[in-house]
Amino acid sequence: MTDFTAPDPTDLLLHQRDARGVHRLTLNSPASFNTLSEAMLDALQKAFNAIAQDAQARVVVLAAAGKAFCAGHNLKEMRAQPELAYYQKLFAQCSRMMLSIQNLPVPVIARVQGLATAAGCQLVAQCDLAVSVDSASFGVNGIDVGLFCATPSVPLVRNMHAKQAMEMLLTGGFISAEEARSRGLVNRVCAATELDAQVDALVNAILGKPREAVRLGKALFYKQREMGVEAAYQLAGQTMACNMMDDVAQEGVQAFIDKRKPSWRA
Amino acid sequence: MTDFTAPDPTDLLLHQRDARGVHRLTLNSPASFNTLSEAMLDALQKAFNAIAQDAQARVVVLAAAGKAFCAGHNLKEMRAQPELAYYQKLFAQCSRMMLSIQNLPVPVIARVQGLATAAGCQLVAQCDLAVSVDSASFGVNGIDVGLFCATPSVPLVRNMHAKQAMEMLLTGGFISAEEARSRGLVNRVCAATELDAQVDALVNAILGKPREAVRLGKALFYKQREMGVEAAYQLAGQTMACNMMDDVAQEGVQAFIDKRKPSWRA
Amino acid sequence: MTDFTAPDPTDLLLHQRDARGVHRLTLNSPASFNTLSEAMLDALQKAFNAIAQDAQARVVVLAAAGKAFCAGHNLKEMRAQPELAYYQKLFAQCSRMMLSIQNLPVPVIARVQGLATAAGCQLVAQCDLAVSVDSASFGVNGIDVGLFCATPSVPLVRNMHAKQAMEMLLTGGFISAEEARSRGLVNRVCAATELDAQVDALVNAILGKPREAVRLGKALFYKQREMGVEAAYQLAGQTMACNMMDDVAQEGVQAFIDKRKPSWRA
Repeated sequence: MTDFTAPDPTDLLLHQRDARGVHRLTLNSPASFNTLSEAMLDALQKAFNAIAQDAQARVVVLAAAGKAFCAGHNLKEMRAQPELAYYQKLFAQCSRMMLSIQNLPVPVIARVQGLATAAGCQLVAQCDLAVSVDSASFGVNGIDVGLFCATPSVPLVRNMHAKQAMEMLLTGGFISAEEARSRGLVNRVCAATELDAQVDALVNAILGKPREAVRLGKALFYKQREMGVEAAYQLAGQTMACNMMDDVAQEGVQAFIDKRKPSWRA
Repeated sequence: MTDFTAPDPTDLLLHQRDARGVHRLTLNSPASFNTLSEAMLDALQKAFNAIAQDAQARVVVLAAAGKAFCAGHNLKEMRAQPELAYYQKLFAQCSRMMLSIQNLPVPVIARVQGLATAAGCQLVAQCDLAVSVDSASFGVNGIDVGLFCATPSVPLVRNMHAKQAMEMLLTGGFISAEEARSRGLVNRVCAATELDAQVDALVNAILGKPREAVRLGKALFYKQREMGVEAAYQLAGQTMACNMMDDVAQEGVQAFIDKRKPSWRA
Repeated sequence: MTDFTAPDPTDLLLHQRDARGVHRLTLNSPASFNTLSEAMLDALQKAFNAIAQDAQARVVVLAAAGKAFCAGHNLKEMRAQPELAYYQKLFAQCSRMMLSIQNLPVPVIARVQGLATAAGCQLVAQCDLAVSVDSASFGVNGIDVGLFCATPSVPLVRNMHAKQAMEMLLTGGFISAEEARSRGLVNRVCAATELDAQVDALVNAILGKPREAVRLGKALFYKQREMGVEAAYQLAGQTMACNMMDDVAQEGVQAFIDKRKPSWRA
C-alpha cells in the first residue's frame, strides 16, 4: 500500500492523505505537461483503487504540478505503437480510470492551476466539482492532430450545452476559465493566490457532512440522471428512506429540531 | 369537492380558482415555513387531483404565504417515526405529488416569494415555469443534517448543469435568485413589488392559447425529452399532426392567413 | 445531379459548392419568409442527400435570403389540406429532413441573418453550429395559432435548459440573439457586417481538420449522448482507436511530435 504520509517527490503521481481523510493527488510530470501516459494512467487507477478501499476517505483533490494541469494523452507513446489493439487497450484503460472518478464513494474536486487540453479537459469534466484559476484555458483539441476527442466528448456534453461542446470538439478552440464556469464545466474561478482557499472551502464543506450520506448521494445522483423521471424518483425515494434510517441522519435531524449542531459535526 | 370561491383562511393549503380557470394554490403554513408535512403533501395531492378533473382548468399558480416559499420536509414529523417503512411511504407520497405537477394537463408556475430549500427547492424545479423575487435564495441543503437531497436531485439535474447541481447537493450552499435564473432553475427574477405582475404576464400568455394544444404540448415535451432523438421526432410529429386536426388550430391558422385574431382568442 | 457552380437564382433553394467542398444552401423564398413549404422541404432533403453522396464535401452553411431566416411551416399549404394523413406525412417529411442534418457526415452551420420562428427556429437548433446577427430573434410560437411546436421542441430542449424551452413553447415569446447565445441555441452573435467573417472562421477551422476524423466524431457525439455513460465511453474508446489508425491521425501526431504542421494541412 502507498505510504500517504511522505510521497517520493520524484513519483509520477504524488499521493498524500491527511488525518481528516482528504486525499490529494498531484499529477507530477510538469516537463511533459502532465500527460496521461500509460504510467500516469496506471498510477491514477491505482490511487483511485486505494482510495476506494480507504473506509475513512472523505474527499479527493486532483491537482497538478507545473504550468499545465494536463495536456491529455502522451502522443509520443501513442505514435510509437501504431496498432489497433494497443489503442483499444489504451482508451479502455483511460475510460476505466475516468469512470473510477464517478464510481468513487467520495467527491473528487479538480484543482485546475493551468491549461487543460484533450483528455486533460476530460479529467476536469469527469470530476464531481472543479475550481480553476482565472488564467487557465480549456480545449478538446485532438482534432488539430486529426484525432477527434471522442472520449472527452462523453463527460463534456454531460457538463455543457451541445452546440458549445460541438464547437470546441470541431474547431479545437479554447475557452477561458470564466467561459468554462459560465458553461458549467467548472464551479468556481479565482486568482491563483486564492486557488487553495477556494478548494479548501469546498473540501471543508464536504468534511462537515456525514460520509455515508455523501456516498449514497453521489452514487444516486449519477444513476438517476440516466433514468426516466419516474424510475429516477423511485430510486431516489428508496435512497433517501435508507439514508434517513442512518444514526447520523437521525441525530442531524434531532439537532436541527433542538437548534444545536449535530454531535457528528466538528 | 373543494369550494374554490372562498377558501377557509385557516386551511393548510388555500385553493382558489377564478372564472378563467386559473387555479391558485397557496402554501399556508408560514409559521412552519410551509414545510411539506404529511398533511401538506396530502392537501397538495388532493388539489392537483381536483385540478386534473377540472376540464376548464387552464393554469396553476403555486404560491406561498409568509417569508419562506417552502422549507422542505417536516423534520419533526420525520424524526418522530424512525421506521424504514414510514420513510419509504413518505418519500413515495412526496414523489407522487411532484410527478403530479408534470402530469397535470395544464402548466404550473411557481411564484417564489422567499426561501426555497430542500424539497421546497425541488418544488420549484419540478414546476413547468417559475418566477422569483430577487431576494429569494435556493438550496438543497438536506446534507447539512446528514440527509442527501436525493429526490430533489431528480428535477434539479433536469433544470441545470451537473456540476452546478452537484455543488449545491454536496455543500448545502445556497444560490441567489439571479444565479438560479442564469442556471435555468427559474425563468424570471424581479422585485417583490413586480412579482404578481410577472406571474400574471405568464398566466395571461398561457390563457391566450388553446387549452388542448397546451395539454398535448406539455405532455409531449416531457415524454420526448426522455427518448432518443429519432423516436422523439416520431412522437412529436404524430402529436403535431393530431394537434393540427383540432378546430382551434384550423381556425388559428386561418386567422393567421387572414391577418386577424383567431375567434377563440379573447 | 445539381450543378453546384451556377445555381438558378430563381430556385427555391440555392445550392453552391466551392472547390474546397464547402456547400452553401440558401433558402431563397424571401417573399414567403423562407417558409418550409413542401417544395422547400423537398429541396432541402434533395440537397442533403446530394451532400451525403459528395465524398469531398467538408462543411455545409445553411443560409437564407431576405429579412427572415425562416418562418417555419407554410401555413397556407397546411390549411388547404385539413387531413390527418396529410399532416402526418408533412411532419414526417420535415422530421426526416431535420434528422438528415444530424446524420450528415459533415458539420452544418446555420447562418442566421434574421428572424427564426417555429420550424425555422428548429432548423437553427438542429444544426451542429450556429452564428447569428445581433438583430435576429428566435421563437417557437406555433402555440399562437393553436399549434404547439412539438417537433421544434425536440432539438430545442437538447440545446437549452428545460424551463427556458418550456417558456418559449408555452408563451410563444421571442428571445434575442444574445439570449439565444447565452442559452446555448447559437454559438456566436455578431453585427450583420461581421456575419460572413464569423461563419467563415468556423468554416475555415473545420476545413483545417481531416474529413474522416470530423465524420467519425460528429456521428459519435450524437450517438453517445443518448447512451448511459459506461456504454458511451465504450463506443467512444472504439471510435478513437479506429480514428487513431488513420494515416492522417498518425501523420498529425507525428507532426505534433516534430513540432511542424501536418502534411495534410493547408
